[in-house]
Amino acid sequence: MTARILVVDDLPVNVKLLEAKLLVEYYEVVTASNGPEALRAVREHNPDIVLLDVMMPGMDGYQVCEAIKGDPDTAHIPVVMVTALDEVSDRVRGLEAGADDFLTKPLNDIALFARIRSLVRLKRASDEWRAREATAVELGVSSSMCPVVDEKAPGSVLLIGDGMADRESVGKTLADQGHSVTVVETGEEALEQASADDFDLVLLSDGESSGDALRFCSQLRSQPEWRTKPILLALAGSDTERLAKALELGINDYLVRPIEHDELIARSWTQIRRKRYEDRLRDNFTYSVNAAVTDSLTGMYNRRYLESHFARVCDRLGAAGKPISVLVIDVDHFKLINDQFGHDTGDQVLQSIAKRVQNDVRGFDTAVRYGGEEFIVLLTDSSQDAALSAAERLRMQVSATPVPVSGPIDDIAVTVSIGVATAVAGQESLDELIQRGDRALYDAKNAGRNRVVAAAAAERDSGISSAAVGQN
Amino acid sequence: MTARILVVDDLPVNVKLLEAKLLVEYYEVVTASNGPEALRAVREHNPDIVLLDVMMPGMDGYQVCEAIKGDPDTAHIPVVMVTALDEVSDRVRGLEAGADDFLTKPLNDIALFARIRSLVRLKRASDEWRAREATAVELGVSSSMCPVVDEKAPGSVLLIGDGMADRESVGKTLADQGHSVTVVETGEEALEQASADDFDLVLLSDGESSGDALRFCSQLRSQPEWRTKPILLALAGSDTERLAKALELGINDYLVRPIEHDELIARSWTQIRRKRYEDRLRDNFTYSVNAAVTDSLTGMYNRRYLESHFARVCDRLGAAGKPISVLVIDVDHFKLINDQFGHDTGDQVLQSIAKRVQNDVRGFDTAVRYGGEEFIVLLTDSSQDAALSAAERLRMQVSATPVPVSGPIDDIAVTVSIGVATAVAGQESLDELIQRGDRALYDAKNAGRNRVVAAAAAERDSGISSAAVGQN
Repeated sequence: MTARILVVDDLPVNVKLLEAKLLVEYYEVVTASNGPEALRAVREHNPDIVLLDVMMPGMDGYQVCEAIKGDPDTAHIPVVMVTALDEVSDRVRGLEAGADDFLTKPLNDIALFARIRSLVRLKRASDEWRAREATAVELGVSSSMCPVVDEKAPGSVLLIGDGMADRESVGKTLADQGHSVTVVETGEEALEQASADDFDLVLLSDGESSGDALRFCSQLRSQPEWRTKPILLALAGSDTERLAKALELGINDYLVRPIEHDELIARSWTQIRRKRYEDRLRDNFTYSVNAAVTDSLTGMYNRRYLESHFARVCDRLGAAGKPISVLVIDVDHFKLINDQFGHDTGDQVLQSIAKRVQNDVRGFDTAVRYGGEEFIVLLTDSSQDAALSAAERLRMQVSATPVPVSGPIDDIAVTVSIGVATAVAGQESLDELIQRGDRALYDAKNAGRNRVVAAAAAERDSGISSAAVGQN
Repeated sequence: MTARILVVDDLPVNVKLLEAKLLVEYYEVVTASNGPEALRAVREHNPDIVLLDVMMPGMDGYQVCEAIKGDPDTAHIPVVMVTALDEVSDRVRGLEAGADDFLTKPLNDIALFARIRSLVRLKRASDEWRAREATAVELGVSSSMCPVVDEKAPGSVLLIGDGMADRESVGKTLADQGHSVTVVETGEEALEQASADDFDLVLLSDGESSGDALRFCSQLRSQPEWRTKPILLALAGSDTERLAKALELGINDYLVRPIEHDELIARSWTQIRRKRYEDRLRDNFTYSVNAAVTDSLTGMYNRRYLESHFARVCDRLGAAGKPISVLVIDVDHFKLINDQFGHDTGDQVLQSIAKRVQNDVRGFDTAVRYGGEEFIVLLTDSSQDAALSAAERLRMQVSATPVPVSGPIDDIAVTVSIGVATAVAGQESLDELIQRGDRALYDAKNAGRNRVVAAAAAERDSGISSAAVGQN
């Protein structure tokens, strides 16, 4: 996979050397020779990855990394620190500045390219989602509906014990951070018993386990539910080829054995946070789909949902010749409530009626706000008699208890009128059914409101139009 | 990247050989020894790729491929035909059956793994979108709103002429298929002049061009707008390493020079169709986000949009101390229209009024359907006087021309009442502003309807509540 790479180093010879290596592999290369230049290049060229020298005069690599990761517009760009330093404390400092990885000078080509490929692949997967989040935010969908991600909330770690001699102290270190840790003995056990939904991170060790840890990683990655779950692999530092293979198989990050606990803490937090961020990007889709079929005032489904749902219900019931009914429910004198008490109070009335309607329908029926003060309930496999009783029960329920509203106002007595229409599923369109229900509703209104009227059957439409049932 | 691979061959020794090769590279392997078994395995194991022998007793590879590609649930799984046949006619037959590629026995490892990696990577990118489409379809968002993809609509091809000696006959073959073909001389020209939006496919040739075709592919792939655009590369058949590199860089498919025109036709159609399919998957997101902020009856923005939009407008105008106004517009006696002519006619009236409101607002103002028969227009940087004239103009516009409706009914005379409220941006919440507008609307209704009333300023709320302006 190709990528645009920003190389930052204060020594021109280092820049040239790295640039040449990358160009041979067809990467696009942008260069910078100090911190401020690097930050400008990040903004201007939007690289896929930054290879960042640590020791530079003026602004050092840690500071550059912090600046990149501290800016919401650039925080997603992976930063690899290229350093002659090889102390744990240096690595931990880099991780805390937000670095995604370290490469030690002189650079080993296999390690370099394996790491670039892996980070670019992970970035590409979320690039598309991030681009779409921008659209959603622009239209006010995502910001208003997605839960806020708590960056500091601890996560849940699945620890594969096999081959990890220091599993107890590793587990304790993670638990001390607040993470919940579940230990299973082997990869097979993990696949059989663990549910991907329960975990934010998988931690395992390679090279000293009874099975092949890379085989297990491959198995995880070929199952959709585990595909995007972060994997952190501990392995022997000397085996660059094996690390390259593990990265190619899709592990997210690694630790060199013996595991340094400060590094374990930093890397596991990085992975857990990234997972949360990416989950949220993906969830935007679900949120916006849900928002598209939901009425924002009452939280009920809307007309759009009813239309597609009706088609599915008819497909299912039509073959069996089962009946289907709609209740067309309208709040009586709603305009007066709005005029007298204002829209806020009107909205509260609608919310309250919506709740009563929803509580009243069976789980397999569907209640929607159809518009204004009109609700529709779709009753599946329901004869006209059954639908009439349901409507009558609902009508009584609403009129029995006045609606409490905020402010210095008494509870408001509200009634509804309901038109009921029934058909054999599949023999009438939703529009036709609702039109008949509407006419029945109109008769209910004319007959004095707070009542239920059944529509005449579709065939007898020219005859008597409807028959009053409930009355009050 | 790991993957689950289904190997289909009637000779056990071939299956074993291929399985062993794949296992060493940590792929998961499933096997089948004939056509019906293969189709069962596809359904049961949901592989990421199928390596399919062509010549099998009973159901042959072409038939198996057709069955996989003919089933909407499995059509997205890449199929590579593994064959001893090497005639163009065999390849074309396979492509027409829906095959994604061919590998010739005996298998060359570099070609095998390069092709697997490339196909799996392309599949992964759309896997996530496909999973989400299922959610959208379930809720009725995607089926009801996305345009239908026309599988047979020709596409638009960008042909890079440099290094393609037979460019004229290639262009003619594509044009004969109905595709529109744009020829540019070099990759640089393409990057400078062509806009990614205009093309469904990029076709270029490697090895005889003045520049490096792979470098150009890499440049295309590192630009977001070209990233998912299909690239079809013609290259010398002998250079497996070069092909592997091209696949690694992200080309989608290739042709061996000299270009066989039947194969060109088949492969270009495959790429154009796949692009359309993937565009649609991605568009689902945009559609559902749009649907979430749109009123389905009128196509106007809805209350959800107004809320987020208001916050952004206030951020922008508030700093400069600029005024902001809302018009709260309500259709007079709408209930009577609904009762007298039915909901259908009522809906037509709302749609017509919505159109008049939308046509009347300036490009940077925002009109939404707020609920029922109420519309709200947000006027940015607009004083109360300006807002009153806008409201008065709209009121006159509506009352001047009766609304035409379908059926044997005369055009319906409709009027609106409008309440206008103005504030300095950022000093009042949307709710407060609308509440003041609502009270003015209430006064307009009480004063006889078909008129505009300005709300008193927020500070003087306890005094005179509003002042009539327009009247009729």
